[in-house]
Amino acid sequence: MARIVMKFGGTSMAGIERIRNVASRVKAEWEAGNQVAVVVSAMAGETDRLVGFCREASSLYDTREYDVVVSSGEQVTSGLLAIALQAIGVPARSWMGWQLPIHTTAAHSSARIEEIDTVALNASLAGGEVAVIPGFQGMTADERITTLGRGGSDTSAVAVAAAMKADRCDIYTDVDGVYTTDPRIVPRARKLSKITYEEMLELASVGAKVLQTRSVGLAMKEKVRVRVLSSFEDARGDDGHRGTLIVGEEEIEDMERQLITGIAHDKNEAKVTLLAVPDRPGAVASIFNPLADASINVDMIIQNIAHEAGSTDVTFTVPRAELARAIDVLAKAQPDIGHRDLRHDTRVSKISIVGVGMRSHAGVAATMFKTLGERGINIQAITTSEIKVSVLIHEDETELAVRLLHTAYGLDAEEAAA
Amino acid sequence: MARIVMKFGGTSMAGIERIRNVASRVKAEWEAGNQVAVVVSAMAGETDRLVGFCREASSLYDTREYDVVVSSGEQVTSGLLAIALQAIGVPARSWMGWQLPIHTTAAHSSARIEEIDTVALNASLAGGEVAVIPGFQGMTADERITTLGRGGSDTSAVAVAAAMKADRCDIYTDVDGVYTTDPRIVPRARKLSKITYEEMLELASVGAKVLQTRSVGLAMKEKVRVRVLSSFEDARGDDGHRGTLIVGEEEIEDMERQLITGIAHDKNEAKVTLLAVPDRPGAVASIFNPLADASINVDMIIQNIAHEAGSTDVTFTVPRAELARAIDVLAKAQPDIGHRDLRHDTRVSKISIVGVGMRSHAGVAATMFKTLGERGINIQAITTSEIKVSVLIHEDETELAVRLLHTAYGLDAEEAAA
Repeated sequence: MARIVMKFGGTSMAGIERIRNVASRVKAEWEAGNQVAVVVSAMAGETDRLVGFCREASSLYDTREYDVVVSSGEQVTSGLLAIALQAIGVPARSWMGWQLPIHTTAAHSSARIEEIDTVALNASLAGGEVAVIPGFQGMTADERITTLGRGGSDTSAVAVAAAMKADRCDIYTDVDGVYTTDPRIVPRARKLSKITYEEMLELASVGAKVLQTRSVGLAMKEKVRVRVLSSFEDARGDDGHRGTLIVGEEEIEDMERQLITGIAHDKNEAKVTLLAVPDRPGAVASIFNPLADASINVDMIIQNIAHEAGSTDVTFTVPRAELARAIDVLAKAQPDIGHRDLRHDTRVSKISIVGVGMRSHAGVAATMFKTLGERGINIQAITTSEIKVSVLIHEDETELAVRLLHTAYGLDAEEAAA
Repeated sequence: MARIVMKFGGTSMAGIERIRNVASRVKAEWEAGNQVAVVVSAMAGETDRLVGFCREASSLYDTREYDVVVSSGEQVTSGLLAIALQAIGVPARSWMGWQLPIHTTAAHSSARIEEIDTVALNASLAGGEVAVIPGFQGMTADERITTLGRGGSDTSAVAVAAAMKADRCDIYTDVDGVYTTDPRIVPRARKLSKITYEEMLELASVGAKVLQTRSVGLAMKEKVRVRVLSSFEDARGDDGHRGTLIVGEEEIEDMERQLITGIAHDKNEAKVTLLAVPDRPGAVASIFNPLADASINVDMIIQNIAHEAGSTDVTFTVPRAELARAIDVLAKAQPDIGHRDLRHDTRVSKISIVGVGMRSHAGVAATMFKTLGERGINIQAITTSEIKVSVLIHEDETELAVRLLHTAYGLDAEEAAA
């Protein structure tokens, strides 16, 4: 007997036929004698519909009421899955966020889970009942409905798994695992059978949209074994297993370890350059403090060497969706910053190589720069972490760069992915 | 300062534009210095969509989970109305059934309200906030979501009004009040400015679809002054008032009182005749007990005089939607009942005249029979209550009968209704 959390995304819950498919997958785990909690998303498109209503009602909507409205999508699918499970002989009941309850912060529309009460949940599971839990939602201390922000259902699943000390948290999605890179760009991309939390975290945050970043961070913190697999396909990989397991580094044998685990690309950044910023103490703070105050995330930063007497150019990237707001903030701060001009470029792409093997091997970044340089791809900015190197290049060169690097790091499979 | 409950149905809540219209009506009452609670239905069509999902998931769905699914429709409109109110400067918040809470029985999908906790509600109203409450929903003692059955939002509104001792419960709908009869059949039907609870109860139960029967019964028991009026029109009647007020008999002046207040028709019944039922003690019980056990409501009953030695025909009506089930129940009970044959007829219509004036006047029923008889309309069955006379006739004669009776009882307006 194992304790398992199964999480199904919006595509897997889109319509009753698909919910029946989900029910039969849950039944298989339950029949194998496992205790099963299922975390579900709203039907694909439903959350967008509900968010649209709120925006139409008021551009400055109260996020407490927004949470009341948008949390209803998962409420519907939870009830329907419980019905579909019962219809095939599996005892099941739904538990709303306020019923368990799932306690969260009061940061409506982007709340964080603080604690999940497992008394009722454990009693239900021990009685052989499958628990169906709406993802994305919780309750504040004063009993108001909260949501965790878009994609929050992955986080709900990991949090439930941590709270019930589950042996595994299976995230069912529309892809069959985590790949070395996007198979639409590199047909020879390989499905990974295992990946470490840290690698997944870096891949998730640089644009591999398999899992929500926050859920991976939580899984790492709580040591929840997460598996990503397909709702629609049962094919097993070369290793005989379905999906990709996300685990601690200690669970991955040295033998299995590649220098680089994956390559991600991200076209959601925009580059901003401030020209001729006076080169004085506090200059950098005068740029980035107002951006931070406006909650705009700055990613890559390069400060050029002073090119004229007493001034320098500062380049950085912000999320493309925040560019207009960033320009506005910087225009207001201009008297303080003192830059002569601002230029921006949305036709950029960030390419990242990720792998824990990087730690113990020198020259990994050098291979990246050399590979791109040989084909004349200009690197506009660089950032690194312990297990990641990212470069900013021209958007048009994204696919070429990913393919070149995939080959250079020996990631190509012998045959093209299906 | 008055305390007012305003209730808006699905047509009034269908889409953000209409929700804005509702918000402006609420604002007017709030700006006049009133304490206002608003009870809302789901958007028109939404409950049907959600019920459809449940039925598609399983024909034998768990009503506890059905309640989780279908209650979400009112959750959405409550949040949206709170947002729309805030957008025009009216402080407002939504209160789910479990948040107030609204305590109900555990009869899922057709629960009854037992008690509404008003501590939080009163504090909110006293603070000048408009309370937005989803109709149709509540919570059991073990904290599971319930719904009150279709049309339950009217009942929610009256129950909230009773609990908060409201001065008035205004039910906004797509008609501008209660008419002497259906204006689509009789263009000279008149809008009533006042009607008694008992009359409204009889009219509601015989097919005038303005208010849910249960809500009228509750209003009568709790002495809640209910007004029915239009969400979309502001026209006032001849009396200078909007809508129709439903009140106790003592509030209606003798001067205003008509002999007959309204005429209703109902095409939702079917007639069943059991031929040659053995005429012995317990024969009637052997017919109606199995129907009662199957929760099939029997309405009109006629037992003919024994036409052959020792046997009689028994005729009665059941809801048309239950006819197939009634036939099935009676076929199974045939050995016990001993009838020779069963005939049924769905082409029937029930016409009812309603009025408290009937109590003190003889000959009211006689006028009905004479009026119909003179035009050759055959009466197949009759039932009466203290303030109502109903007859069963052929369906094709419905409109003619209603028009004849409307004229016969002096209800025609001088001009046709708009």
